[in-house]
Amino acid sequence: MGRWEPGAMERLIAAALELFERQGYEATTTAQIAERAGLTKTTFFRHFRDKREVLFAGQGVLIERATAAVDGAAHGAAPLDLGAAALDALAAAHPEERRADATRIGAVIAAHDELRERAVFKRSAIAEAVARALTARGVDAVAAGLVAELAVRAYYTGFDRWAADSRAGSLPELCRAALDELRAAAASVTAR
Amino acid sequence: MGRWEPGAMERLIAAALELFERQGYEATTTAQIAERAGLTKTTFFRHFRDKREVLFAGQGVLIERATAAVDGAAHGAAPLDLGAAALDALAAAHPEERRADATRIGAVIAAHDELRERAVFKRSAIAEAVARALTARGVDAVAAGLVAELAVRAYYTGFDRWAADSRAGSLPELCRAALDELRAAAASVTAR
Repeated sequence: MGRWEPGAMERLIAAALELFERQGYEATTTAQIAERAGLTKTTFFRHFRDKREVLFAGQGVLIERATAAVDGAAHGAAPLDLGAAALDALAAAHPEERRADATRIGAVIAAHDELRERAVFKRSAIAEAVARALTARGVDAVAAGLVAELAVRAYYTGFDRWAADSRAGSLPELCRAALDELRAAAASVTAR
Repeated sequence: MGRWEPGAMERLIAAALELFERQGYEATTTAQIAERAGLTKTTFFRHFRDKREVLFAGQGVLIERATAAVDGAAHGAAPLDLGAAALDALAAAHPEERRADATRIGAVIAAHDELRERAVFKRSAIAEAVARALTARGVDAVAAGLVAELAVRAYYTGFDRWAADSRAGSLPELCRAALDELRAAAASVTAR
């Protein structure tokens, strides 16, 4: 079997989701996932460190896209506009045809403490990376942390609404709407 | 040996820190921690689920104190005042004489991915609990999430400054100063 398998990552994710749903996350082994996908364990481990990471594929890509968007935003952009650029990049990373998978992955994660812990860490890693990118653009550290938090909170709020309802709007729309809500709420609660 | 050992938890924490620092976190076993503290493994497991939890003692107490402070705040308090009440309760949970331990615990956590992951989850659990308490006080969900985030961010910022410098001010002072900075930054970045 050659080193490179077309679509291997997608086949492994699909196989893992089927097995997690049918027999439970704990009972599923990496060998079973690979077998169901018609691939070897070696191929599995070329794509994922362990079965948990199948559910968190793409974290590195999300961070790269979000930070690149901040780096490349227009000169003189306000801090929240830089955050919005990161948000748009995060939202653009999930094509509409993956909405059903997002719903299924969310259900598996929600049912397991270990996975929810990993999900929280992923969110934190994205927020930290965006905050660093904002700091590199000259935003002071306190504001950078806050703006990154607003962007990531908008991303997760929009994503949850997108995954929860197949008739909800597009992910970019839902994320921008969430950012608008957060901006209004932040302005309101911090007004003197 | 009786069921109850006076100061057992404190002795176990002190023993664990010594061993983590001397021989490393991975190489330390719960049996070694119990032995060094002059206690049995049974006593260890009465206080902690595993060696990792020695470093995260008190999460439940923090959540109880913070949510009780929100529940008990004055009628008609503004959302950010409710957040400040939670913050004061969190800050009051760490007596000044534990500052050196906080510094040591932070150093062990910072050196291990697994522990940093657990720390992020702890922070998230506190923020979620405070947000729920705010919602129960009538704050709408978006504002509650944001105010809880501001309070917890102020708590961690203040705590880090407190642990990093034995000459820095008291923890309650540092936390309130951090909240003031965050409030100003949030107002600034969300202004239209």
